[in-house]
Amino acid sequence: MGKVLIIGAGGVGTVVAHKMAGLPKVFSEIMLASRTKAKCDAIAEKIGGNRIQTAQVDADSVPQLVKLIRSFQPDLVVNVALPYQDLTIMDACLETGVSYLDTANYEPKDEAKFEYKWQWAYHDRFKEAGLTAILGCGFDPGVTSIFTAHAAKNVFDEIQYLDIVDCNAGDHGKAFATNFNPEINIREVTQKGKYWENDDWQLTEPHEIHKPLNYPNIGPKESYLIYHEELESLVKNFPTIKRARFWMTFGQEYLTHLRVIQNIGMAGIEPIMYEGKEIVPIQFLKAVLPDPGDLGENYHGETSIGCRIRGLKDGKEQTYYIYNNCSHEAAYKETGMQAVSYTTGVPAMIGAMMFMQEKWKKPGVYNVEQFDPDPFLEELNQHGLPWNELHNVDLEL
Amino acid sequence: MGKVLIIGAGGVGTVVAHKMAGLPKVFSEIMLASRTKAKCDAIAEKIGGNRIQTAQVDADSVPQLVKLIRSFQPDLVVNVALPYQDLTIMDACLETGVSYLDTANYEPKDEAKFEYKWQWAYHDRFKEAGLTAILGCGFDPGVTSIFTAHAAKNVFDEIQYLDIVDCNAGDHGKAFATNFNPEINIREVTQKGKYWENDDWQLTEPHEIHKPLNYPNIGPKESYLIYHEELESLVKNFPTIKRARFWMTFGQEYLTHLRVIQNIGMAGIEPIMYEGKEIVPIQFLKAVLPDPGDLGENYHGETSIGCRIRGLKDGKEQTYYIYNNCSHEAAYKETGMQAVSYTTGVPAMIGAMMFMQEKWKKPGVYNVEQFDPDPFLEELNQHGLPWNELHNVDLEL
Repeated sequence: MGKVLIIGAGGVGTVVAHKMAGLPKVFSEIMLASRTKAKCDAIAEKIGGNRIQTAQVDADSVPQLVKLIRSFQPDLVVNVALPYQDLTIMDACLETGVSYLDTANYEPKDEAKFEYKWQWAYHDRFKEAGLTAILGCGFDPGVTSIFTAHAAKNVFDEIQYLDIVDCNAGDHGKAFATNFNPEINIREVTQKGKYWENDDWQLTEPHEIHKPLNYPNIGPKESYLIYHEELESLVKNFPTIKRARFWMTFGQEYLTHLRVIQNIGMAGIEPIMYEGKEIVPIQFLKAVLPDPGDLGENYHGETSIGCRIRGLKDGKEQTYYIYNNCSHEAAYKETGMQAVSYTTGVPAMIGAMMFMQEKWKKPGVYNVEQFDPDPFLEELNQHGLPWNELHNVDLEL
Repeated sequence: MGKVLIIGAGGVGTVVAHKMAGLPKVFSEIMLASRTKAKCDAIAEKIGGNRIQTAQVDADSVPQLVKLIRSFQPDLVVNVALPYQDLTIMDACLETGVSYLDTANYEPKDEAKFEYKWQWAYHDRFKEAGLTAILGCGFDPGVTSIFTAHAAKNVFDEIQYLDIVDCNAGDHGKAFATNFNPEINIREVTQKGKYWENDDWQLTEPHEIHKPLNYPNIGPKESYLIYHEELESLVKNFPTIKRARFWMTFGQEYLTHLRVIQNIGMAGIEPIMYEGKEIVPIQFLKAVLPDPGDLGENYHGETSIGCRIRGLKDGKEQTYYIYNNCSHEAAYKETGMQAVSYTTGVPAMIGAMMFMQEKWKKPGVYNVEQFDPDPFLEELNQHGLPWNELHNVDLEL
């Protein structure tokens, strides 16, 4: 039994609140806070049962966060706000003595850098304060890392080749929309490709490496090697990994739109002066694009995200493919949000549950693969994201 | 000899000022005014010889315009500002008793409509005041209408089929840029297609009708039927025309960029609320895109714009093709502006010359084809836009 404060009322925050509301034995009190209290109120009303308290907070402001945390006194803060806000929320947790969980690593606003260094630097302070910080507990990062930890613990003696494969075979019926915050999404997918091999990071041009991969229940989809943040912690925490890559599917139209958005300057993260006001092009674009939270209603098809792993067991090479498929329609029916929000929010809720049940609790800052994967994966099966595994199949990679 | 006030210091205003500066016997005094006086000062300094006076004026404000016109007392106002500002400038001309010339018809800001009705409604007032208003005196509209008037006067007894063909075979080396004000450009090319046939306007989807056409010294280029404003006045002033169409070349990449710009909502002309401020997406896009005035330096290739006409002469069907080719590099070398600005600015200067020399002067509001084309076309040959004609060739149309 514990009190939890959720910060962020987008699609993911909605799913987290929904899922926690149904588990009063784990989450006795829930508060949902964001910059716009009305968004929290709407979510709370939809969930009903007076399960969700709401509050207004500017997550860029440590004093505001501290004040809110002091007044509500949660056991855990679940941060599903923007990645820019990870550090202010961690600062507020340290100041108030509360543990922390998030779903995406900190990213400085003025450069598209995806590195854990800023958050890992908090390790000693969290450790000394006796507080737990759980980093990257969504689907990817999150479940993909827990799948890897499970393979390392229960399937292989030594994992050697890791390919995380992320397919969204959904169709939202819009000419162009991003599945989560467009600013973060576009920053992520337009960066250079990067993967781990030969004890070092290998760089590629954006979308330079791609091939069709077959996804369960979906079929072949062109998949692009991109950098994704969990690679950084996985190669550190599993040093037997010789090569680690991340693949994501994109449609031709999506890539064409991205290319044009960059060409016309609307992906820019440097502010320009417009009528006497500094405006960041990609932030203005976000305001013009469809709200990812509104995509759910007509979203068909499913996502398929998993890990394809090659390694050694009893001295012999084995292959292993562990994955979850999630239906956009089923996710929407349950929570009013599409699968991309659902697959991020459910793991965040389970990570919070692991903390409340003291299964994942150790002072310091940790990535999810540094905790025991077994209890997490048991719960994942119970809460809407059942996983499947295939042994010794052709990994195509 | 006369005094001229140029309003608008973009690429076209730069060309007009350059050209007028070299003709002191026609333009004894020249003032260049725009919202940003510094832009006028920079142009004046580059032209040198103390030929250009400068002033600040907000062309949306009739009182400001009246004040400036009263203090400078020009014989003619040459409006090369934005099409939104045609009516305020015409109002100021009426109030101060000064004649008027522009290069593009009035367009309301909140709907992409290209019609002469708003400006034609000023006819009686200009007539009663004894003032001349010359509408659409750029290249297209402008020279294309004068080419048509020349054909009607000197080549045919009856013109029947008119196709205006506008090819820009230049390469500016940028992934995407527009050749003139991107806001006006995108509004124009994303509207539905429209042409005149069977005594009525025929509508098409945007870019629905297209075919490759051969352009002199350039070769075949895919050409798209779009609506262009001179069609409206031409079919009115030459009632023997059975069909009138306008074709413009676009590259595949340009069209892809346009399609995406529309898909993502950045072509929108309705303001959206952004951080408490109303911002029109297409106006913000304009601020992000390359300034058309900066395209000149690396612009290669040439434009080719003309009229392909079929009609009767002495009872027999004849064909006629009259056109000008303009080199981006030559235009830039002479004025620091590329050919799209050059081909608009030179005709505006010649129209102003026609007025000063009293060759084009009659009280009322007139489109250029309602004046004598001969003296204009003579000057066009002298001032950088020589034209060519071909008789009885295959028009491809």
